[in-house]
Amino acid sequence: MCAAERDGSAGVTAARLAALLSAFAAGDDRLGVSELARRTGMPKSSAHRLTRHLVAQGLLERDGAGVRLGLKLFEIGQLAVRGSGFVDAARPYLADLREATRNTVHLAVLEGTEVVYLDIVRGPDAPALPSRIGGRFPAHATAVGKAIIAHSPRPVLEAVISAGLPRVGPRTLTAPGLLRRQLTKVGEEGIAYEREESVAGVLCVASPVLDRSGAARAAVSISGWSNRVRAERVAPAVRTTALTLSRTLP
Amino acid sequence: MCAAERDGSAGVTAARLAALLSAFAAGDDRLGVSELARRTGMPKSSAHRLTRHLVAQGLLERDGAGVRLGLKLFEIGQLAVRGSGFVDAARPYLADLREATRNTVHLAVLEGTEVVYLDIVRGPDAPALPSRIGGRFPAHATAVGKAIIAHSPRPVLEAVISAGLPRVGPRTLTAPGLLRRQLTKVGEEGIAYEREESVAGVLCVASPVLDRSGAARAAVSISGWSNRVRAERVAPAVRTTALTLSRTLP
Repeated sequence: MCAAERDGSAGVTAARLAALLSAFAAGDDRLGVSELARRTGMPKSSAHRLTRHLVAQGLLERDGAGVRLGLKLFEIGQLAVRGSGFVDAARPYLADLREATRNTVHLAVLEGTEVVYLDIVRGPDAPALPSRIGGRFPAHATAVGKAIIAHSPRPVLEAVISAGLPRVGPRTLTAPGLLRRQLTKVGEEGIAYEREESVAGVLCVASPVLDRSGAARAAVSISGWSNRVRAERVAPAVRTTALTLSRTLP
Repeated sequence: MCAAERDGSAGVTAARLAALLSAFAAGDDRLGVSELARRTGMPKSSAHRLTRHLVAQGLLERDGAGVRLGLKLFEIGQLAVRGSGFVDAARPYLADLREATRNTVHLAVLEGTEVVYLDIVRGPDAPALPSRIGGRFPAHATAVGKAIIAHSPRPVLEAVISAGLPRVGPRTLTAPGLLRRQLTKVGEEGIAYEREESVAGVLCVASPVLDRSGAARAAVSISGWSNRVRAERVAPAVRTTALTLSRTLP
């Protein structure tokens, strides 16, 4: 029976299945099994076998010579964030903020030391941004990230600082002391600013979505050209939307 | 080594992993492991072990006594539909259609005998609908479904008919002959109508998004109150958006 091995191999298999699903990146329409083996560092034979199993389960779909992520993963993924109904409830308010500011609205949550964008509503006056729904960005370099961190338990900030504060934009805050001082201010004001810290020429203003305990569950922001958007003018609008979203939290 | 068993157990693990991820339904914020075992019909011990592995991989997240779908699944799921960029490219056009009609816009694809909604933009004049992004609905009972089926290879229609044409709304087409005749007309006109076939009091008008070969890759629709929306008036707008989306296909 070798049940012990089965337990062990179930863990290995689960890890490899997760690795295969995580191997796809933005722009990867389809990947060959050899490429999947290369990216996941697993033997080609295992990649072949596990890919076949994932296709049988609908988590991957055959696409010519390769495979692509299955629509089933989109369906399950939607439940992951829409289960609570928060993202759907937030949508009209994000549209209102975009309407009022004509710039791009982001709704994001913190995941480890990065933010993940739950929704993005692009505005006519805003520059094209590299962010995408479901995409990630280093939290310390974004207004949404700073808004969330400033309203989270202290260990969250320490984890972000331990991650090394990598420089991602022309003016990314890479000095722990500077970041700490700025976040104290953000915690007091409920507004976080970001000036070319993630993207050159771009300004962002964010405010946290807080639960009843006052902890940040998400953050909403406005992004526009730094030479066109007046931060202090859009701040009240962003804060208003953030307070409204806090009210819609389940 | 019992490698043969490992191969067999890899298939079992993949199937159970997919079953656990698929066990969550809309509104399930968190599920206990016993409930997961019940829903998937797997031994509680296996559910416990595999759930632990999935949490370790970030596909599930601990939530009090139970687990919920991991944010990682949302990220992967977004890549499943946004990899091609079609959904993002379509968004502004869907917003335009909603603006012009003040009713609710749906973008859907066909998956087997059901449609899956890729995006929904709710309009101020439309009734509240049960549809949700990432959700499914029997294709034969929806305008988007009929628009896609009418522009797909014949086996697609046969599969839908073989599934039994379940009645889901007051006026669902449950007679194969009637459905075949209506779809022939839809294939000629490029417009599909749905009058209370899915939801009482609701009218939908859809048009297919076609690739260069003329095959449907998706469909866009407008949904509104059947006693307020004039189908023949919104049809040209829906068709215009569908043709525009066909142009944006990669």
